[in-house]
Amino acid sequence: MYQRKQRLPIEKYVNGVLGGDKIILSKAITIVESTLEADQLIAEKIIEQLLPQTGKSMRIGITGVPGVGKSTFIESFGKLVTSQNKKLAVLTIDPSSQRSGGSILGDKTRMSNLAVNPMAYIRPSASGNSLGGVGTKTRETMLLCEAAGYDVIFIETVGVGQSETTVKGMVDFFLLLMLAGAGDELQGIKKGIMEMADVIAITKSDGDNRVKCEMAQREYKNALHLFPVSKSGWNPKVLTCSAIEDEGLNSIWEQVLKFKSEMNNNGFLFKNRQQQNVEWMHDIILYSLRNKFYSNGNISNAIENLENDIKNEKIPAISAARKLLKEYHN
Amino acid sequence: MYQRKQRLPIEKYVNGVLGGDKIILSKAITIVESTLEADQLIAEKIIEQLLPQTGKSMRIGITGVPGVGKSTFIESFGKLVTSQNKKLAVLTIDPSSQRSGGSILGDKTRMSNLAVNPMAYIRPSASGNSLGGVGTKTRETMLLCEAAGYDVIFIETVGVGQSETTVKGMVDFFLLLMLAGAGDELQGIKKGIMEMADVIAITKSDGDNRVKCEMAQREYKNALHLFPVSKSGWNPKVLTCSAIEDEGLNSIWEQVLKFKSEMNNNGFLFKNRQQQNVEWMHDIILYSLRNKFYSNGNISNAIENLENDIKNEKIPAISAARKLLKEYHN
Repeated sequence: MYQRKQRLPIEKYVNGVLGGDKIILSKAITIVESTLEADQLIAEKIIEQLLPQTGKSMRIGITGVPGVGKSTFIESFGKLVTSQNKKLAVLTIDPSSQRSGGSILGDKTRMSNLAVNPMAYIRPSASGNSLGGVGTKTRETMLLCEAAGYDVIFIETVGVGQSETTVKGMVDFFLLLMLAGAGDELQGIKKGIMEMADVIAITKSDGDNRVKCEMAQREYKNALHLFPVSKSGWNPKVLTCSAIEDEGLNSIWEQVLKFKSEMNNNGFLFKNRQQQNVEWMHDIILYSLRNKFYSNGNISNAIENLENDIKNEKIPAISAARKLLKEYHN
Repeated sequence: MYQRKQRLPIEKYVNGVLGGDKIILSKAITIVESTLEADQLIAEKIIEQLLPQTGKSMRIGITGVPGVGKSTFIESFGKLVTSQNKKLAVLTIDPSSQRSGGSILGDKTRMSNLAVNPMAYIRPSASGNSLGGVGTKTRETMLLCEAAGYDVIFIETVGVGQSETTVKGMVDFFLLLMLAGAGDELQGIKKGIMEMADVIAITKSDGDNRVKCEMAQREYKNALHLFPVSKSGWNPKVLTCSAIEDEGLNSIWEQVLKFKSEMNNNGFLFKNRQQQNVEWMHDIILYSLRNKFYSNGNISNAIENLENDIKNEKIPAISAARKLLKEYHN
C-alpha cells in the first residue's frame, strides 16, 4: 500500500485557497500534482468547488530560448504588473534536457525579488515523468491560482518545442522573447512557435546592443508579414526591451491590455477558452487512463519482470504490451 | 459502422514484405497506421511474424531546422548509401505547424531522385492527430522496412522539438544538421537536441559560405566539450559538408560506420535497443488505452454533445471527463 501524507479536509483547502493563503495554495497544488488515486479524488473535489471562482485572470505564456534572459525579464515585468496592484502567479515548466536531467537553478533563486514580493507567487510545475508529460497539471495549478485571487498568471516554459504548444493551449496571450543575433534571425526558431506569438519582444536592448535589437525588430516585423492572419484577428507586435534598464516593459504590458480589450470585444477570448476547455477534458481523460493502468496492482507487479524479459529478448515488446493489456482488461 | 478497405490475408502481407515488394510494404504500413481495431489486430500479427527478420538495419535519425537543406542532404547522402549496394528507407515525420497545418511539399517531390531509385523507399509517417501524437507508428513502420530488407533507415524530422526526442528513442545514431550563422551559433538550438547528436554536420559548406562553416565547426566543437560524456562513450563529431558539391558526405558516412563498429564492440548498440524496446512497450500500451477509449461506441456517441456542453458552459471539463471515464469503466 501507498504511504501518503496526512491530508486536510477538503473545505480547509477550498477556504484557504479562496482566502489567498499561499501555504494552503501550495499544499493544494501538491495534491493536484500527486499521482495517487486518493489524492486525485481530493483534487477533483477541490477544483470543482473552486471552479466558479476561476477564469478571471489574464493568462500569459512566456517563452524563449536559453540565454534570452527569461528570469530577468520576468523579474522586471512581474514587478511592473504587481506595482499596478495586480497579484501575479508565475508557473514555470522545465522539461529539462533528456540526458543531463534535472533543472539548473531553483526558480526562487532565479527570481529572487518576485520570490519575496507579497503580491507574487512562484511555483515550478511538475513535468515530464513517465506518467505525466509536459506540465500535465499546469492547467489545474493555474485554476487554483485564479481562485486564490491572482489577476495575472505567467506560464514560463524553458526552451522552444512541444511544451510551448501545450502552454499555448492554456493561455490567452503568448509572449515570445528573442535575442538579437547578427545574422539569420529566423534560423533557430520554429515557424510554428513564431506563429503562436501575440507579441515578440527582443530582449537585452541596451548599450551597444540596442542597434542590433532594432535591426532584429525590423527583420521580425517583415517575417511576420509572411504569416497567415491569426484566428484571433490580432496583428502580432514586435517590440524591444531591456529588463535591466527597465525600458520597453510598459509597452509590452500595454499590448497585453490592448489584446485583452480587443479580444474581449470580438469574442475571441471567450471562444478560445471554450476550445481550451474541450482540450482540457481530453487531457484529463488521457491522464486518467494512463494513471489507472499503471497504478493497477496486477500491472505494477508484472511490469518489471516483463521489462526484463524484453531486455533479455525472451518476449517482444509488442507481445508484452498485449499481455499487460489483456491482463488489465480482464 | 466503419467502412473499411478490403484487406489481404495476413500471409500475403508477410510474404510480400519479406520479398521486398514495395507495394505490399506500403499497404502493410497503411494497416499499421490505421486506428481501426480490426486493422490493428492484423497489424500486430503481421509485425509479430516479421519480428525475427527485423533489427538488422542501421537506424539513423536526421534532423535540423527548416532551411538547413534536409531534402538536398538526404538526396545526396541517400545516393551515397545506395551506391554502396545498401537498400535505404527514408521515413519522414512532419508534425507541421499547429496553425497553418498540413505539410508543404510531398516527400517524393522533395526528394525526386531517391523517389525513382530502385534501392530506396520513401514514406511519410502519419503523425499528430488527436489519437496519434508524433510518429506513433514510426517504429512499427521501421520494423516493416527492416523485414523488407532495407539495410539503412533514415528517420527524418522537421523542426527541432519533441519529435526529435521521440526519434532518438528509436534510432541507433542521431545526425543533427546545422546552418552556419554569423553570430551566436548556439542561440536557436536546444541544448537537449545537441546532446542527442552523434554527429553534427554543418550544411551548405560551399563557395563563399565555406569559411563561415569552418568557423561554426570550431564553435560547435568547443561547445560540445562542455557537455557531459555520453552514455555510449561516443565522442560526438562536428563535420562540414556540401550536398550540392557532394563534399564531406563520405566523412559523415565513415563516422556512421565507425560508430556502429565501436558501439557493437562496447555493447552500447545492444543495450540501447533493449531500452528502446521497453519504451516501445509503454508506447503501445498508451496508444492502445487511448484508442480503445475513443473507439468505444458509447464514448464516441456521447463525446460531441459533451464537447458542446463544455463550450456552452453547461458542464465543466473536469466533470465531463469524469462522466465519460465512469461510463467507460462500467
